[in-house]
Amino acid sequence: MGCDGVKDVRITRVRVVDLRFPTSREQIGSDAVNKDPDYSAAYCMLDTDGECTGHGLTFTLGRGTDLVVQAAEYLGGFVVGKTLAEITAGFVAFSRLLTDETQFRWLGPEKGVIHLACGALINAVWDLWAKVEGKPVWRLLAEMPSAQLVSLIDFRYIDDALSPQEALDILDEGIRSGMVERLSVLQTQGYPAYTTSVGWFGYPEEKIRRLAREALADGWTHFKLKVGGDAAEDLRRGRIVREEIGWSNRLMLDANQKWGVLEAIERTRQLQELAPWWMEEPTSPDDILGHARIRREVAPTRIATGEHCHNRVMFKQLLQAGAIDVCQIDSCRVAGVNENLAILLMAAKFGVPVCPHAGGVGLCEYVQHLSIFDFLRVSRTMEDRVIEFVDHLHEHFLEPVEIRRGRYQVPQRPGYSIEIFADSLERFAFPGGAVWSGGR
Amino acid sequence: MGCDGVKDVRITRVRVVDLRFPTSREQIGSDAVNKDPDYSAAYCMLDTDGECTGHGLTFTLGRGTDLVVQAAEYLGGFVVGKTLAEITAGFVAFSRLLTDETQFRWLGPEKGVIHLACGALINAVWDLWAKVEGKPVWRLLAEMPSAQLVSLIDFRYIDDALSPQEALDILDEGIRSGMVERLSVLQTQGYPAYTTSVGWFGYPEEKIRRLAREALADGWTHFKLKVGGDAAEDLRRGRIVREEIGWSNRLMLDANQKWGVLEAIERTRQLQELAPWWMEEPTSPDDILGHARIRREVAPTRIATGEHCHNRVMFKQLLQAGAIDVCQIDSCRVAGVNENLAILLMAAKFGVPVCPHAGGVGLCEYVQHLSIFDFLRVSRTMEDRVIEFVDHLHEHFLEPVEIRRGRYQVPQRPGYSIEIFADSLERFAFPGGAVWSGGR
Repeated sequence: MGCDGVKDVRITRVRVVDLRFPTSREQIGSDAVNKDPDYSAAYCMLDTDGECTGHGLTFTLGRGTDLVVQAAEYLGGFVVGKTLAEITAGFVAFSRLLTDETQFRWLGPEKGVIHLACGALINAVWDLWAKVEGKPVWRLLAEMPSAQLVSLIDFRYIDDALSPQEALDILDEGIRSGMVERLSVLQTQGYPAYTTSVGWFGYPEEKIRRLAREALADGWTHFKLKVGGDAAEDLRRGRIVREEIGWSNRLMLDANQKWGVLEAIERTRQLQELAPWWMEEPTSPDDILGHARIRREVAPTRIATGEHCHNRVMFKQLLQAGAIDVCQIDSCRVAGVNENLAILLMAAKFGVPVCPHAGGVGLCEYVQHLSIFDFLRVSRTMEDRVIEFVDHLHEHFLEPVEIRRGRYQVPQRPGYSIEIFADSLERFAFPGGAVWSGGR
Repeated sequence: MGCDGVKDVRITRVRVVDLRFPTSREQIGSDAVNKDPDYSAAYCMLDTDGECTGHGLTFTLGRGTDLVVQAAEYLGGFVVGKTLAEITAGFVAFSRLLTDETQFRWLGPEKGVIHLACGALINAVWDLWAKVEGKPVWRLLAEMPSAQLVSLIDFRYIDDALSPQEALDILDEGIRSGMVERLSVLQTQGYPAYTTSVGWFGYPEEKIRRLAREALADGWTHFKLKVGGDAAEDLRRGRIVREEIGWSNRLMLDANQKWGVLEAIERTRQLQELAPWWMEEPTSPDDILGHARIRREVAPTRIATGEHCHNRVMFKQLLQAGAIDVCQIDSCRVAGVNENLAILLMAAKFGVPVCPHAGGVGLCEYVQHLSIFDFLRVSRTMEDRVIEFVDHLHEHFLEPVEIRRGRYQVPQRPGYSIEIFADSLERFAFPGGAVWSGGR
């Protein structure tokens, strides 16, 4: 907002809101593991000496959001007083101020509460940067010189898998090989998506059927179903969805980390009659070798994971180990856009398609920028790529995602599309907002 | 205290203290990455309807301890109201109440702030249990039937590497094969240790020399030096230590995650002239495949890691990948005694010696129990096993570790040796304690 024509801004204050939506009341977002999620966020605002404010959030599930808020408030101290130009000119050094804080680091490093907080703050810097540049984040990225993009990436712990030169080559090729044409395709066709909203775990059969029919009518061709409950019940629900969507549309299954490695192999084989396009999170998100073994033993069923993959070092290994067919980046579990650039480039090098996780609040708004950039400059293809879509809570955003016939439309407003209406921030603030103080 | 003759107790209240020691003022604990640690803890007390109180802590480095304290206070709600017998009869189910809290889980799972909090609470249960049984934790464990020990372990996500039956067999063999004789050896000889206190990063040459001489005179034979700074400077400091301790004593090097994989290979090779007994934390603690590659390429130098390994799934993979020669468990980064039982048993199955991390406050007090149990029931040997020792802050414990001629003496008092004097809890409480409110 109000950033037009500004050259640089100095960040003068960081405000963080504990924002919680009572989605568990309707079993929205429920799966085999996450039974009662209240879609929530540690929501950061970087005020500046101009009219500009940078917004960023990290997604959480309710309780514990206060911990991330406090971590972001503390780490926000490293942001205040800096100009945007100072930050972006030495972005890796700036990021390390947050990710390497000498005492906080013990609590990770680069994982859990403190890393989630880093994601919110760094993404807020990106929102601010894009607003000052007058571009959506995807365009800011897509139009950036390769060397500058490479300078944004922390290669520490990943240079054995991807060197700066290899990153540069991929990005250069992204410009040379018809980026303008790809943008034109994107502007007319949008980016393919899949819907998760039909098959939440707690939904009864009739609701699943109705939502599947509605989604089909809206042009959806890719559907995800939550599994990981009773084996027969999983199959039954899967057959219901297949009955509704037929066999020419794609069905993905998601076990949300429910199984051990051996059980995952057995259960995935049982579910193969549903012809899943991928099996998602069959086991612990930390189990790289476990995913690799599952993948070998359930071939040709494709294995997907990433929404709980906590940093680029873990993604690097998933790729090195041949553990995944689908790389599911999350926009704010890792340290923001910068760390995701590293992951996109590693995925490209290893030839693994990126299909972002977006089941949450604000995640659809965020990740569309990353997938669009991936298409324009990195992977250069939309084949076998889909962005997750969940149809919840978009009404709170100034620029909500726009979906037409099952495809994301390219966002146009400057920024990272993550800004939430002030009124919503107030109503859903925890515990003081009207939604919570009324009757929790 | 005051637990004699009690049969069962009900936990009535959980108190958590933010405890911080200003160790950074003397550069105690300083290394290439952790430059200014204030040895700290989220310190938990489980009050009961009897005279007994269970104590447990999780180790932190200062800032951010408040986050762990808050997480422990919240998760403490799952402990209050339960009897000790209820908890121990269904320990895995109890642990999952903490580690699987449906909304908190998103902030991990099983890693970072929330998992550290679980470690403190679960260890406090063990302290309480051992006090009620009138035994030190090592003895409570060593005298427990194998089937009961196995029932304490959450095999979720690890049963592809270790089955309950395999665990049972290892533990049974531990009884059959001369446990009584081993205990007798232990009581007379103690458990071997190494000292880290001579070579903190910030110590000047003269201090290193003096401390090394003093340690030699005290009977130490294993010494650890922090590296990861300037290459020539690392070598210079290493040569100083070698000059003092000679070549018949063992020298271990610790890079505290400073390097990338390629750099770690190069730097470890340079340091091989020091004949390190192991190279510790050469790279990111998350990089299982990286450690495996480093190990292959710097052979025969042995690779050690684990103090930042955040759960049993990661340890499992370090073992499966052949990534480590030395498994460095930490007593409270994972979810307490129970998760460490899983790790000890996996290490035994894979034939990797366990040499616990103990550089912190309370960690020496804790881990001696685990290593003693490991010797009595699991690995059945002390060969190539040493427990870390740092000579800091022991004066705050009711039963501080006792070291004689470089060996831990077997603790005798009931409990987990982790109880801190009430006076110390008061003085070092942050930010209200006298040490902090005076002048920070």
